[in-house]
Amino acid sequence: MADSQNPPLLVAEEEEGGKGLSKKAAKKEALKAEKAMRRQQEEAAAAAAASLSLEADPLAGNYGDTPLADLQSKEVSGRRWTEIQSLVEELKDEEVLIRGRAQTIRAVGKNMAFVVLRRMGFTVQCVVTAAPELVSRQMVKFAAGLSRESIVDVQGIVTVPGVPIKGASQQVEVQVRKIYCISRAAPNLPINIEDAARSEKEIEEAKLIFPNCSLMGAMQAGETLVSVGQDTRLNYRVLDIRTPANQGIFRIQSQVGLMFRQFFLAENFVEIHTPKLIAGSSEGGSAVFKLEYKGQPACLAQSPQLHKQMSICGDFGRVFEIGPVFRAEDSYTHRHLCEFTGLDVEMEIKEHYFEVMDIVDRLFVSMFDSLNEQCKKELDAIAKQYPFKPLKVELNC
Amino acid sequence: MADSQNPPLLVAEEEEGGKGLSKKAAKKEALKAEKAMRRQQEEAAAAAAASLSLEADPLAGNYGDTPLADLQSKEVSGRRWTEIQSLVEELKDEEVLIRGRAQTIRAVGKNMAFVVLRRMGFTVQCVVTAAPELVSRQMVKFAAGLSRESIVDVQGIVTVPGVPIKGASQQVEVQVRKIYCISRAAPNLPINIEDAARSEKEIEEAKLIFPNCSLMGAMQAGETLVSVGQDTRLNYRVLDIRTPANQGIFRIQSQVGLMFRQFFLAENFVEIHTPKLIAGSSEGGSAVFKLEYKGQPACLAQSPQLHKQMSICGDFGRVFEIGPVFRAEDSYTHRHLCEFTGLDVEMEIKEHYFEVMDIVDRLFVSMFDSLNEQCKKELDAIAKQYPFKPLKVELNC
Repeated sequence: MADSQNPPLLVAEEEEGGKGLSKKAAKKEALKAEKAMRRQQEEAAAAAAASLSLEADPLAGNYGDTPLADLQSKEVSGRRWTEIQSLVEELKDEEVLIRGRAQTIRAVGKNMAFVVLRRMGFTVQCVVTAAPELVSRQMVKFAAGLSRESIVDVQGIVTVPGVPIKGASQQVEVQVRKIYCISRAAPNLPINIEDAARSEKEIEEAKLIFPNCSLMGAMQAGETLVSVGQDTRLNYRVLDIRTPANQGIFRIQSQVGLMFRQFFLAENFVEIHTPKLIAGSSEGGSAVFKLEYKGQPACLAQSPQLHKQMSICGDFGRVFEIGPVFRAEDSYTHRHLCEFTGLDVEMEIKEHYFEVMDIVDRLFVSMFDSLNEQCKKELDAIAKQYPFKPLKVELNC
Repeated sequence: MADSQNPPLLVAEEEEGGKGLSKKAAKKEALKAEKAMRRQQEEAAAAAAASLSLEADPLAGNYGDTPLADLQSKEVSGRRWTEIQSLVEELKDEEVLIRGRAQTIRAVGKNMAFVVLRRMGFTVQCVVTAAPELVSRQMVKFAAGLSRESIVDVQGIVTVPGVPIKGASQQVEVQVRKIYCISRAAPNLPINIEDAARSEKEIEEAKLIFPNCSLMGAMQAGETLVSVGQDTRLNYRVLDIRTPANQGIFRIQSQVGLMFRQFFLAENFVEIHTPKLIAGSSEGGSAVFKLEYKGQPACLAQSPQLHKQMSICGDFGRVFEIGPVFRAEDSYTHRHLCEFTGLDVEMEIKEHYFEVMDIVDRLFVSMFDSLNEQCKKELDAIAKQYPFKPLKVELNC
């Protein structure tokens, strides 16, 4: 409202008018640098492709696409798998077998390629280096030619590099001996996980450095980094939920449910599952979804209220439920959901409603404490993309 | 089918024809005994009522109906409550304050009354004995006049009788000093909890003893014990779920959910909550409930299948859900439910489907073991009304 006399568009134009030349120069520089980088990468890939020799590779058994038939529960191999999150310095010099998605693939000339594998939010850098008797150039080429998000098996030796690894969560590398692609992803995915994982702040900061500059045709003027819109995210949800922030959100949701249940079970509550298909509206004040139930009118429950109260009258004393709640109101805010997961509690009161407040109070304190303790990694991953203040309960005693 | 030539009705008539006299005699005896018992009870109640003296009772503050206004969160009294399940011999001679439902009320003359209080499936016998300066006859009368299922507060001294107590779960008695009715139940409830808790076997055995005998007008010939039909149970569900078997069923359901979750969380699964309102049917082969979602056709999810698989593609690796499932098939068996709580699991397979079987196998073993350990009381309560073979996993290794 305060800026109504100075619409942002005008401001932008004025700025451009004032420092237009220097900015254009900066933009050109940036474009040039970016193009150079891309050309380099393309050349590396082309070089790798060009080196495709038709002569037989004696080490051909150590890499390749695993045929579908080999993936169909043929035998129990007894091979020991290591989770990526378990790859730590203590495993130095040991041979491990890991499976993950190829998050980034980078070729360095014809003799070396880096593949970062990701699994359940943890990543590790795998290095394919051509070496006589061990790794052929064709194998390096195979690794460099993997598509992002493909599922890859790697067998290799754990090494600990002298410097910290920036591009992966695990501080060890795997020197690849064998590499197989289990499921090859399409070469052009509608969402790049790195783009989807970017925070608005990063995108805004990039804009400030290169205003009115666009590196890609699909982006709007002023954008130098791709931002993925909500519609695209929802249309390709299976890709979007692979971002560290989304992985964290789902894992925290799971943890919240666990803590909620543990807390109430310890307080002698009983977990119930109430009907969602009911004959009438369960609560006043909100619209219901109506449907036909075997020729009779029915509603989706807006709340477990009635059944929770029946449970209390039915001698359970204390009950809780975690389950879907349906509200048919037309949504006027971006926070309203027609379907959500409700965490619902009902308890009999002995003397005073303070008894309920005491329970709720302790619930939130223990929940926040436990989230801070158990889900540090997940909270950090979310905060990186969607910054928030640390979870903290302030008690005004 | 084998009896088609001898319909039960004829058999009954033949039997009556053959041993009619002795059976009739037995029936008469039973009726007489029952009537005598009832008369006695009525007389006791009448005697208690008749003793209502209009003179002021100096101990009137120790009993009575608590006015509603006194129950409205006025102050935190700080009184210490004891749960009925915590009433054990170690508390001998201590004064306790308990709250529960009056399960049975029995007057013995004018000077004594027994009230069995029940809470969360545990019961304790409270004894009101007239004694100078402590308990007035009016107080005994008040206790004897309580209606079953009323909620009652009792303050009293724990005693340990020399003989085992049959009518209550706790093996101590409470010598009542104060007794207040917090919420008085209607004198005639549509379901008597004792009737609803009876097993079919008990009812059948009673029929064998007194065939063709009916103690109450509402019962069919041949019944000597009331059996509560399913319709009545469902119409008065808040009463029906107070039976020990139903309390056990709900508590075991809660425990099964807990163990299911603990097991899968320990195996690195993530708990998810998938949408129940979806755009199309989620699984072939079963009918869906259709409804209108903001002008668009929608279905209730028949399964979390699609979203579980999306989670696996979305890098969660292993997920599970406990939530409602909706199936609109017309029900042709008495085991089919249009809505039920599904315990759903999805996991990625590394090499062989044996990995899933191994998980499921261990799940059931740990679940049954844990139920037998944690829910013995609940299993016993259910078995008493609905006999079943003990839970056991037989491994054919």
